[in-house]
Amino acid sequence: MESTKKANLLISCKDTPGIVKTITGFLLSHNANIANLEQHIENDLFFMRIEWELDNFTIKNRQEFLSKFSYIQKQYDITLTLALCNKKIKVGLLFSREPHCLIDILSRVEIHELNIEIPFVISNFNDWRSIVEKFNIPFYYIPTKKNSVEHEKEILNIVQKYDTDLLALARYMKILSQDLIKNVNQKIINVHHSFLPSFIGANPYDEAYKRGVKLIGATSHYVTEELDQGPIIEQSIQRVKHIYDTTNLKLIGRSCEKEVFYFAIKKHIENKIITFNNKTIIFE
Amino acid sequence: MESTKKANLLISCKDTPGIVKTITGFLLSHNANIANLEQHIENDLFFMRIEWELDNFTIKNRQEFLSKFSYIQKQYDITLTLALCNKKIKVGLLFSREPHCLIDILSRVEIHELNIEIPFVISNFNDWRSIVEKFNIPFYYIPTKKNSVEHEKEILNIVQKYDTDLLALARYMKILSQDLIKNVNQKIINVHHSFLPSFIGANPYDEAYKRGVKLIGATSHYVTEELDQGPIIEQSIQRVKHIYDTTNLKLIGRSCEKEVFYFAIKKHIENKIITFNNKTIIFE
Amino acid sequence: MESTKKANLLISCKDTPGIVKTITGFLLSHNANIANLEQHIENDLFFMRIEWELDNFTIKNRQEFLSKFSYIQKQYDITLTLALCNKKIKVGLLFSREPHCLIDILSRVEIHELNIEIPFVISNFNDWRSIVEKFNIPFYYIPTKKNSVEHEKEILNIVQKYDTDLLALARYMKILSQDLIKNVNQKIINVHHSFLPSFIGANPYDEAYKRGVKLIGATSHYVTEELDQGPIIEQSIQRVKHIYDTTNLKLIGRSCEKEVFYFAIKKHIENKIITFNNKTIIFE
Amino acid sequence: MESTKKANLLISCKDTPGIVKTITGFLLSHNANIANLEQHIENDLFFMRIEWELDNFTIKNRQEFLSKFSYIQKQYDITLTLALCNKKIKVGLLFSREPHCLIDILSRVEIHELNIEIPFVISNFNDWRSIVEKFNIPFYYIPTKKNSVEHEKEILNIVQKYDTDLLALARYMKILSQDLIKNVNQKIINVHHSFLPSFIGANPYDEAYKRGVKLIGATSHYVTEELDQGPIIEQSIQRVKHIYDTTNLKLIGRSCEKEVFYFAIKKHIENKIITFNNKTIIFE
Repeated sequence: MESTKKANLLISCKDTPGIVKTITGFLLSHNANIANLEQHIENDLFFMRIEWELDNFTIKNRQEFLSKFSYIQKQYDITLTLALCNKKIKVGLLFSREPHCLIDILSRVEIHELNIEIPFVISNFNDWRSIVEKFNIPFYYIPTKKNSVEHEKEILNIVQKYDTDLLALARYMKILSQDLIKNVNQKIINVHHSFLPSFIGANPYDEAYKRGVKLIGATSHYVTEELDQGPIIEQSIQRVKHIYDTTNLKLIGRSCEKEVFYFAIKKHIENKIITFNNKTIIFE
Repeated sequence: MESTKKANLLISCKDTPGIVKTITGFLLSHNANIANLEQHIENDLFFMRIEWELDNFTIKNRQEFLSKFSYIQKQYDITLTLALCNKKIKVGLLFSREPHCLIDILSRVEIHELNIEIPFVISNFNDWRSIVEKFNIPFYYIPTKKNSVEHEKEILNIVQKYDTDLLALARYMKILSQDLIKNVNQKIINVHHSFLPSFIGANPYDEAYKRGVKLIGATSHYVTEELDQGPIIEQSIQRVKHIYDTTNLKLIGRSCEKEVFYFAIKKHIENKIITFNNKTIIFE
Repeated sequence: MESTKKANLLISCKDTPGIVKTITGFLLSHNANIANLEQHIENDLFFMRIEWELDNFTIKNRQEFLSKFSYIQKQYDITLTLALCNKKIKVGLLFSREPHCLIDILSRVEIHELNIEIPFVISNFNDWRSIVEKFNIPFYYIPTKKNSVEHEKEILNIVQKYDTDLLALARYMKILSQDLIKNVNQKIINVHHSFLPSFIGANPYDEAYKRGVKLIGATSHYVTEELDQGPIIEQSIQRVKHIYDTTNLKLIGRSCEKEVFYFAIKKHIENKIITFNNKTIIFE
Repeated sequence: MESTKKANLLISCKDTPGIVKTITGFLLSHNANIANLEQHIENDLFFMRIEWELDNFTIKNRQEFLSKFSYIQKQYDITLTLALCNKKIKVGLLFSREPHCLIDILSRVEIHELNIEIPFVISNFNDWRSIVEKFNIPFYYIPTKKNSVEHEKEILNIVQKYDTDLLALARYMKILSQDLIKNVNQKIINVHHSFLPSFIGANPYDEAYKRGVKLIGATSHYVTEELDQGPIIEQSIQRVKHIYDTTNLKLIGRSCEKEVFYFAIKKHIENKIITFNNKTIIFE
């Protein structure tokens, strides 16, 4: 859709005068033309996303970039994420029994709305195997067993076999252990079916119904060791009415869940999220 | 704005076949023409709002209506609220230091957007006396004293003196005692500066900032004895960005607070709210 | 999801005192328990939707209902739509090259979110045949030919063969002739990719980009003979930013298009829409 | 609210590699610390807003800045707007008979939400003089006369007498002539009571009612010579229902009108708007 290929860089470090000039100078000296730059400081920390056209850029690969940039990185003690080429990100999907978020992502990939590769779908239920297989994606049914360690070992094996870049929990209703979170060694995005921090836990729509809220919502976030406490990526709400029962709330909430889940995956693969202080910075 | 004067009736009772026919039959037999009717059942309870034109209605006053309707009321064990004439509702306002909700209501009354009478404004701070007096409304400064009993006694005296129908807390930051809530003997509407049940208590914007939510909100509700736990009337949200600090969040949140506070007062005086099971039913 | 089966009735007629009592009386006399009733008058016209439980209802079929109700219908000159049983509505889908609305509806049916039968999909392009066939739905490719009459004849044949109840244009980019609209003899729902009445015609996103609007939208409506002028069923918008080009606008707009298209089909099959004066009345 | 004083600069020019480095280098060489930077290119044009802390900035006034920056400005043929000090912007307000936008701005200034000076209010009706005078602002009643030239001459005299920086039309229902627009020689912000480009002209709510739209809206824009065709600054919508008549639509629309009007004035005085190609670029 865009004629010119672009690279981008996420930067965070302590704020020091001169960083913007130094980094734009570095890029300029290698013939980059800057297409887009967003930068701000918060509590003496410096955050930036910079995007440039690759047409005449003289650095040809990741290794070369990191090597040439390393003296600047050391000088300012920079944490960076570099997206130099358009390699397709591999996203492994897990879900349980509610298929709407899963189907939404599969459909978007199918019709080229979302440029990712989905190497597998894991579920602890076998209900929706056939729909996943329609999309020609390997489906792994790992039933919830007494022995959770074994269960998670199977998951880990699959993740490692396919060497994914990101895991995304499309309404996966089993809590991941701290060990698994560490061992997969990659970001995990979750969608929670409430407007966090309201209604943490397993039955948010029941609780929303009981409390009589006038808006219900959904939240996508990175998974951390504490349940539903990771950095929030996106939230969305829908207005509801007193005549709706829990069944209606669940149905209406699905559109929020799909929206925030898709948004989170999209922003993540576009390299537009910095996490900091258990919060996210989302660039445009 | 509407050419025909109308009356309306809120009904709740146990669901029994025939109620709608009985009530519409009663109104018809007194020459009412029904303009609007909303009815639903929930958990075997029956809720209805019915509005009719007064042009040819043969019952002339509240007393007569209640007397003639009493046999139906007894038959179905009905709880009702009747609005037969357009008597201006008297709403007493309390606030502390944040004047935006207060000014919004005063302005809407001044330019005839909200058809209420405001007999007084009470504040535990003297900061905004002059702006209230611009609107020619008595301003009572009741400073927060050690002796909370005395403080509340003053409030009660003013409420009783002016004989209000409703109290509305326009960001009043002192908790009302259970005694005061009982003694004023009327509904109290509060605006809470968060999307309840998130961030109960005094500093929701600080907590919202810390949690990194992507939407902030406000909630209007009826006051009950438990803090921020009363029936929710309306909620509203605004999208926020990572670059906003607490000061920005507070400023943005003000528009939600004004909106839900106004909505709650408006729906209440239009006799469009039934509270039930610590929730509200809001009719169109 | 709901334990009790229900029937419902849409009514419009000239306003006359006594209609509500008469109709609720009729239902009561056949042991209906009314679950839900919405009624209002507008310009001396009376509109109502009434829903009742079928448990003890003594009228057993459509024919019997219409026959017994006919004296009331004549008395008040009522136009009615009756939904007495839960017969699955047959919805024929047409689309061209943008598959998102189509896939959304197919997916919702597949995961039991939308209770309709889709007997066929017609397209004037062959691009997305394989995805439709994944869902085991007959796909008819009718290429746009010089002779539009022949083209429409093929469409009409398919519609008549499958005897659909409703046609839904999921981004079908060829204008239907007045003849075809008449001959299919059923309601047709269209989704237009702008916030009508802005940007009528074929390229609304280009026009939105040129005009620099800050919100883009989509509209679902019933098809009438005048292009994009039929009764609006639903509209939805998304906020956009100056940095978005037409490609971005199109991608963002898709979520609005899907939402309003789904809403329109859902409300239609739930018998919750009355069209009147080229507008729609949408019941809750 | 913010502890550190800041300056900012809006830049637009033809895109050339090196601009960001040059400008940030210039600021750095005068001891600026950059707090915030947003930049993008569109159609080979370069747009940027840059904000820096003034603590150690060695350039002390506007004149000095422009003089020292002039060689860069010439090199890249830059159009710029500089906000170096926090001088209060003078905004002259005009309105007719609908006072809600006016009162909203007056209130926000009164309670320190909006940091502008309002030297006068002009109206072609005398209806709301008293409310304006409550806020101690000179009120000029200039009745609509046959001779429009004379009418506009009076307006121009007042504008020139008070030497405003910006004019804001708070529902001023008389079209300004091209001559007046030229002669006031400053930006003019208007609020239009529809979601442009729908319903251009004087009676958008009537037209919205007739067309049966499901969302109504409002638009703030800069005034140009063509009616309702200037660059859009902000738009907002509210959902409406079939039961609302034009009176209801007008009342509901007021909240949109107030919101977009306030937004436009705020963004303008914060130096966050570039107009280009009859569109606006709005920085965060």
